[in-house]
Amino acid sequence: MTAMSLFDSLRADAGPVWDSYIRHPFVLALGDGSLRTERFQKFLIQDYLFLEQYARAYLLLAYKLDTPADRRAAMATASVLLDSEMPLHVGYCAGWNITEAQMSAAPASLELMAYTRYVLELGLAGDTLDLMVALAPCIAGYAEIGASLAPTMTQGNPYREWVLAYSGAEYRASVEVALAMLERLWAGRGSAARYPKLREIFILATQCEAAFWQTGWAAP
Amino acid sequence: MTAMSLFDSLRADAGPVWDSYIRHPFVLALGDGSLRTERFQKFLIQDYLFLEQYARAYLLLAYKLDTPADRRAAMATASVLLDSEMPLHVGYCAGWNITEAQMSAAPASLELMAYTRYVLELGLAGDTLDLMVALAPCIAGYAEIGASLAPTMTQGNPYREWVLAYSGAEYRASVEVALAMLERLWAGRGSAARYPKLREIFILATQCEAAFWQTGWAAP
Amino acid sequence: MTAMSLFDSLRADAGPVWDSYIRHPFVLALGDGSLRTERFQKFLIQDYLFLEQYARAYLLLAYKLDTPADRRAAMATASVLLDSEMPLHVGYCAGWNITEAQMSAAPASLELMAYTRYVLELGLAGDTLDLMVALAPCIAGYAEIGASLAPTMTQGNPYREWVLAYSGAEYRASVEVALAMLERLWAGRGSAARYPKLREIFILATQCEAAFWQTGWAAP
Amino acid sequence: MTAMSLFDSLRADAGPVWDSYIRHPFVLALGDGSLRTERFQKFLIQDYLFLEQYARAYLLLAYKLDTPADRRAAMATASVLLDSEMPLHVGYCAGWNITEAQMSAAPASLELMAYTRYVLELGLAGDTLDLMVALAPCIAGYAEIGASLAPTMTQGNPYREWVLAYSGAEYRASVEVALAMLERLWAGRGSAARYPKLREIFILATQCEAAFWQTGWAAP
Repeated sequence: MTAMSLFDSLRADAGPVWDSYIRHPFVLALGDGSLRTERFQKFLIQDYLFLEQYARAYLLLAYKLDTPADRRAAMATASVLLDSEMPLHVGYCAGWNITEAQMSAAPASLELMAYTRYVLELGLAGDTLDLMVALAPCIAGYAEIGASLAPTMTQGNPYREWVLAYSGAEYRASVEVALAMLERLWAGRGSAARYPKLREIFILATQCEAAFWQTGWAAP
Repeated sequence: MTAMSLFDSLRADAGPVWDSYIRHPFVLALGDGSLRTERFQKFLIQDYLFLEQYARAYLLLAYKLDTPADRRAAMATASVLLDSEMPLHVGYCAGWNITEAQMSAAPASLELMAYTRYVLELGLAGDTLDLMVALAPCIAGYAEIGASLAPTMTQGNPYREWVLAYSGAEYRASVEVALAMLERLWAGRGSAARYPKLREIFILATQCEAAFWQTGWAAP
Repeated sequence: MTAMSLFDSLRADAGPVWDSYIRHPFVLALGDGSLRTERFQKFLIQDYLFLEQYARAYLLLAYKLDTPADRRAAMATASVLLDSEMPLHVGYCAGWNITEAQMSAAPASLELMAYTRYVLELGLAGDTLDLMVALAPCIAGYAEIGASLAPTMTQGNPYREWVLAYSGAEYRASVEVALAMLERLWAGRGSAARYPKLREIFILATQCEAAFWQTGWAAP
Repeated sequence: MTAMSLFDSLRADAGPVWDSYIRHPFVLALGDGSLRTERFQKFLIQDYLFLEQYARAYLLLAYKLDTPADRRAAMATASVLLDSEMPLHVGYCAGWNITEAQMSAAPASLELMAYTRYVLELGLAGDTLDLMVALAPCIAGYAEIGASLAPTMTQGNPYREWVLAYSGAEYRASVEVALAMLERLWAGRGSAARYPKLREIFILATQCEAAFWQTGWAAP
């Protein structure tokens, strides 16, 4: 763990679980454009509900953080979720005549409930480092997926706009800010004794991400 | 809603969802002793993990409550969960040579994660009334199940001890204390405008209970 | 209470306590420019520390709120505190060669600790309505003070910029947004039975505001 | 810090602040029986209100703790506060014809508000280690005071029962349980990088304890 960043250690230790998230069949089908529309719709609506909860998690983090700089960074991430990612989802759904009111009214999946409430409750019971570790798989994984799919994106791929959003400069900048905060929290509150529990949190959140793709992939 | 207690209103409004919990096939098979051992084992181990989280929810409630009397009542319920219900589960499992360490180490089901973290996080974001409404289906439903199954319990029914525990005087007394607190919180913090949201919480927690039986019932 | 808004009822019921805050000698001396610089400095540094904690309270509120619109409103108020009010304080202090680092390092007064931690902890133990009621005296009182002092503000009053900030359109708009949210929360979660406890919270927070002026006023 | 326990390090680093708490004039006057009754009454009523809030803090800790053993220990401490310390206070006050209802209705001092809400809010924003460090000065300091005063306690000292309670076996046992938990939390979640912030928490809580004596001492 010595010379690596906390994130690199966690990602390495998550090993095949991380790969099952980053290279889930749903992701590969996004990349080559073969994903069935119904599956993407199902995912997108759940992800819309997810983003609202994730914004809540970043607001909780912002409340908990000690320094004004970290507090502003967490508020900025909450704003990216609410003002940039959610409108992207709304725009896609508008193309299929699905309204934002319909998205808001969709029932949350069991996978969404388990993932979001686990992260939020951990964030209340634990400290900022526990919470940031639980948030890391989502924010960093989407950037990794975006980066892996963008180079081969074709003009005709219906998911092109989605992929470009997560491989774009704005999103990557917000990931860098979040990961820098993760490392600062680790430097300030981490220890070798805490690492096993943090790894457990990271792996569980990564499993939740893979399960989240699976709910879309399992759609008819 | 006028003359009914809050609990009676919620239970009535939950209607078929409440029945799907109270009269789940798993419950009926407990009652006539036909439930396959493996299914009860699977349920019991998940329920052991569940009780630990539910004790946490009653401790959170105890922290949040305003009066010393209510605080002590919530602490007493946490103690019943930890000192009476959990040992019942451990005793059953010991009969099958399953140790408490194995129970603690079992992976939590998605249903358990979704249910417990939903209740805990709601309890942190909301107030004591929100939290107590989310806790009510569990505590009151088990008493109703115990009462419905006890009269026809045979000596040879392998689940007899379990049923007698939830139909017994100690458990019923703790339910009465909890429901009296629910009504006090409703009198102090409730309103007609709050009722629809409380009903939504109650129904969601009831659905989580039914899903919890289903995880046992679906075992091979 | 019938036809009045919740805020108007609370303000009326706070009566002389409200007046002891709004018309504290410190406030009157701000208005006529007679306030000793040392007293304003002492207040301003404590208020700088206070605003950081109050921004945390609005972030906690934003986490707790149910609707996207309310969540954004609470985030916007947190931003006003951090990006508009705190820089106003820093600007004043810079004029006296007091740096922001010195302001951050100043020890918090007992009055600040009691007030801010009471509000934050109440916000965690209670619900959004409890929290918003605790936040209301600060945000609404400063607007009332600004409005009462602005008409007679002279060009030479050294506190002119401070008064104009709290009587200005940006601040008044943020107060209107906050008070509209208070009324919505009251409509959704309030009741006659809750009112006495809410009044108690409002009066306690108003007393804390008066005590906060007093710490500045008592400076040599 | 190496070979010392966390508590011993914190206590050593608190130095003169610790002494100002443990050897406050109020404490010395308790020891020789010279303390004016009115001062002890004022302290005792505030301390009664304090214990209710401290029980809430241990319940919050119990919710947050990870292991069943730690959870039960925190619940046991909450019970000692509610069922053993508070009745001691009620018994003393009954001797002066002050009822428990009068004690409950007494207004909380600024010192009490600042201390208890600081600890509770820190416990929500931080983790179990932050919270336990904030709780340590109270629980360990009273045992140290009890041990220092007990040997010279005379039969006629009106505060003899109070001193014997805090030097007695039951109280000392609860302190040992709490300090053992503090060291376990430090082993599991502590680090050299966290120590300065923990020391700051410990010293602030110790200052709050000294201020709490002072409110009694300053009574007429």
